[in-house]
Amino acid sequence: MNYSAIIYILGWIFNIEALTMLMPCLVALIKHEGEGIGFLIVMLVSAVVGLLITIRKPKNMRFYVKEGFVTVALSWILMSVVGCLPFVINGDIPKFTDALFETVSGFTTTGASILSDIESLSRCSLFWRSFTHWIGGMGVLVFILAVIPMAGGTRMNLMKAESPGPSVGKLVPKVKQTAMILYIIYIVLTVLEILFLLAGHMPLFEAVTTAFGTAGTGGFAIRNDSLMSVSPYLQWVVTVFMILFGVNFNVYFLLIMFKFGAAFKHEELRTYFGIILASTVIIFINLSHVFTNWTDRLRHTVFQIGSMMTTTGFSSCDFDLWPETSKTVLLMLMVIGACAGSTGGGVKVSRVIIGIKSVFKELTSYLHPRSVKKVKMDGKLIEHEVIRATNVYFVTYIMIFFVSVLLVSIEDKSMVTNFTSVVATLNNVGPGFDGVGPTMNYGGFTALSKYVLIFDMLAGRLELFPILMLLCPPIWKKKN
Amino acid sequence: MNYSAIIYILGWIFNIEALTMLMPCLVALIKHEGEGIGFLIVMLVSAVVGLLITIRKPKNMRFYVKEGFVTVALSWILMSVVGCLPFVINGDIPKFTDALFETVSGFTTTGASILSDIESLSRCSLFWRSFTHWIGGMGVLVFILAVIPMAGGTRMNLMKAESPGPSVGKLVPKVKQTAMILYIIYIVLTVLEILFLLAGHMPLFEAVTTAFGTAGTGGFAIRNDSLMSVSPYLQWVVTVFMILFGVNFNVYFLLIMFKFGAAFKHEELRTYFGIILASTVIIFINLSHVFTNWTDRLRHTVFQIGSMMTTTGFSSCDFDLWPETSKTVLLMLMVIGACAGSTGGGVKVSRVIIGIKSVFKELTSYLHPRSVKKVKMDGKLIEHEVIRATNVYFVTYIMIFFVSVLLVSIEDKSMVTNFTSVVATLNNVGPGFDGVGPTMNYGGFTALSKYVLIFDMLAGRLELFPILMLLCPPIWKKKN
Repeated sequence: MNYSAIIYILGWIFNIEALTMLMPCLVALIKHEGEGIGFLIVMLVSAVVGLLITIRKPKNMRFYVKEGFVTVALSWILMSVVGCLPFVINGDIPKFTDALFETVSGFTTTGASILSDIESLSRCSLFWRSFTHWIGGMGVLVFILAVIPMAGGTRMNLMKAESPGPSVGKLVPKVKQTAMILYIIYIVLTVLEILFLLAGHMPLFEAVTTAFGTAGTGGFAIRNDSLMSVSPYLQWVVTVFMILFGVNFNVYFLLIMFKFGAAFKHEELRTYFGIILASTVIIFINLSHVFTNWTDRLRHTVFQIGSMMTTTGFSSCDFDLWPETSKTVLLMLMVIGACAGSTGGGVKVSRVIIGIKSVFKELTSYLHPRSVKKVKMDGKLIEHEVIRATNVYFVTYIMIFFVSVLLVSIEDKSMVTNFTSVVATLNNVGPGFDGVGPTMNYGGFTALSKYVLIFDMLAGRLELFPILMLLCPPIWKKKN
Repeated sequence: MNYSAIIYILGWIFNIEALTMLMPCLVALIKHEGEGIGFLIVMLVSAVVGLLITIRKPKNMRFYVKEGFVTVALSWILMSVVGCLPFVINGDIPKFTDALFETVSGFTTTGASILSDIESLSRCSLFWRSFTHWIGGMGVLVFILAVIPMAGGTRMNLMKAESPGPSVGKLVPKVKQTAMILYIIYIVLTVLEILFLLAGHMPLFEAVTTAFGTAGTGGFAIRNDSLMSVSPYLQWVVTVFMILFGVNFNVYFLLIMFKFGAAFKHEELRTYFGIILASTVIIFINLSHVFTNWTDRLRHTVFQIGSMMTTTGFSSCDFDLWPETSKTVLLMLMVIGACAGSTGGGVKVSRVIIGIKSVFKELTSYLHPRSVKKVKMDGKLIEHEVIRATNVYFVTYIMIFFVSVLLVSIEDKSMVTNFTSVVATLNNVGPGFDGVGPTMNYGGFTALSKYVLIFDMLAGRLELFPILMLLCPPIWKKKN
């Protein structure tokens, strides 16, 4: 294991975190909030530590897959630990476990909160909370990739470990440019949303934080009732942008390159919109007795579908009161999640496609035992290796899921609470049902459950293996 | 598709069903029950139809995998449809859907009942209900294999489709002998259980039906409260035999051959008992506030663990009232299920082992990308094909699971009811939680839900693919 290279990159995490904390400091300055001192202290300490570590670049920066995985996992943990300290220092979230839960929930774009009264927080803390979504959505490592000079293989191994989805494609031959293009798309879309929200008379502060929560498909809002009390226009804007941020960013790249044909034929994109459409039909019919007005019914239907499938987790109404079919559809959408290569979580649409195709392949193989049927996506053959990795992913997912539910069940909350709290964190959604429904929060869990769910959030965001690998004793052997 | 061969074997299903119905007819004769007329009529008609079909053996009996799958699926459906008619005719279960549900539940060894008052049934119907468990436990096709002369490849393809578990091993070189050995072990164990139950002063009729329910890991009892009101001794006897019938029958064969070393080193067996032991410790501790007496506590703990893991579904108490951790463990055991090659259902311990090992292999492959790590079981290499099939099985399982829950959710029962009704039928357990808990029944579901759950029971018993294949249009093309 190349420890010096890992530590060097962790140093950069300190630097970047210090840089990003400039923003809440600024907010505190503008709003004249004493709570800003927490951010100032952590920023300064983080900057000093970071600079001391990164002052000299190690000679050997060669990275293999395992270093990539370990670095990514450790970076996210470090980011969260450092990022939660201001909350503790300024007293907005005095308990460390709670502050860590909230920050991990932020960076992993989960949006599960331990706060019962969000509105009592200082503005700078509220800003930081939403800003973590925005940072976590695209990934910090991707940012580092675009900034620090590094060997090509190193970059790819880092990107592989942080990017969401079954396979990582480079948009352009160089990883660095790919990372920059992704960030530009991300920023443009975020700014667009802010403008649309401002046009609906949302105050600037709320527009920015809401856009951060949407862009990262996070779900932290600055109001206690999430987005239940904003105007229908604003709810529609957020709906559209949630769905847009759930799209595979490769599609936007194709659009920029004027490859409209390839973009609209993109199989994952079509499936993604197909699922949204089908779910809308089912839930819209199912809600006929819940809403008398069909415009309200349609708005809440599409909003909740967009919110759950992209794993954002905003709520426009208390969907825990909806009939069971609607709730089951929402639960399935939480698990399916958004497209690979988007900021959304969940299992990812492309993995679901690969899974379904491998089942059909299996059935066909019984019919024609001698024919070797290939699984294709977007007209291209899916490599055997990707199919295998996808199937192993599903098995790993189930294992982590069950162990987590078992551990959470120790505190004897209801079965629906236990199961959906894990669904909501492992898929980076935020709210679940019953005890973790849209009007509830995670504050009532014991520390054990909170750490289990923190693990799930990180595992979900980093696609299970990097975080799981930290628990593997052989990784820490010197020889590796 | 070799239709004439398929019809020929379906003819044998009629014959065998007629033969097995002799038993309830006998019971009706002994108990002087008029309800026996239903069994007599169906028996005679079935025998005539069967003999007409099987009077001439088709020349071409060549079977490929697809014919094996289709035959097995159709056989089980036919068996269930014919088997439910006596209930309808003699008025014990007047509605066809309910009678079919009960019979499928019987043959698939699920034990989920639509009856609210079991004790009001005639003795011959009660006997038939339990007898279907015993027939279904070992599989009818296996019986046919032992009886009808058939080409070797045909036998193997039939056996593959009906046997539980990821891979089918022949105990002895010939399929016919293998089938006979399995049946002998099955009969000996059943008789042993009857003797032990009689020794505890259980009436003969109840001892026989209870043994049938245990042997097939079914779960139909002849009392409304399942086994809650029988003596502790009898509960212990049933516990031990449930666990014994959940063991891979290959182990018994090894014991008969005096290969004790191989039997005790059998990896699936050790894991099976390991899981039982670990679950016992967890639930025993978790129930400290539920039972004051530790002997009661241990008995109910082991009974419910044995019952859920072997997917029998008997209950010794209302475990739906247990704390959440215990319920979660039981739910996990339902999904894991018994050993492959036993009469139990669920995903099977060996599949869980393969799944876990493939996850570890994946983790190790990141550590040492160049080393090719092999997955082993019982010291032997697991073929790549088996691992792949196992992973595809998991994905298929999840798909069927979610579609079923969605369909059942239409009637707006509670989320726990919807989910656990599917868990309990797809894994052939019987009772679930909440609305389908041990003191409840499936009578209140709509016809749609009942047919979905019937599908799940058949899919679970036949390891998903044979039943799923019937829904594949290409299979019905003439050319195949």
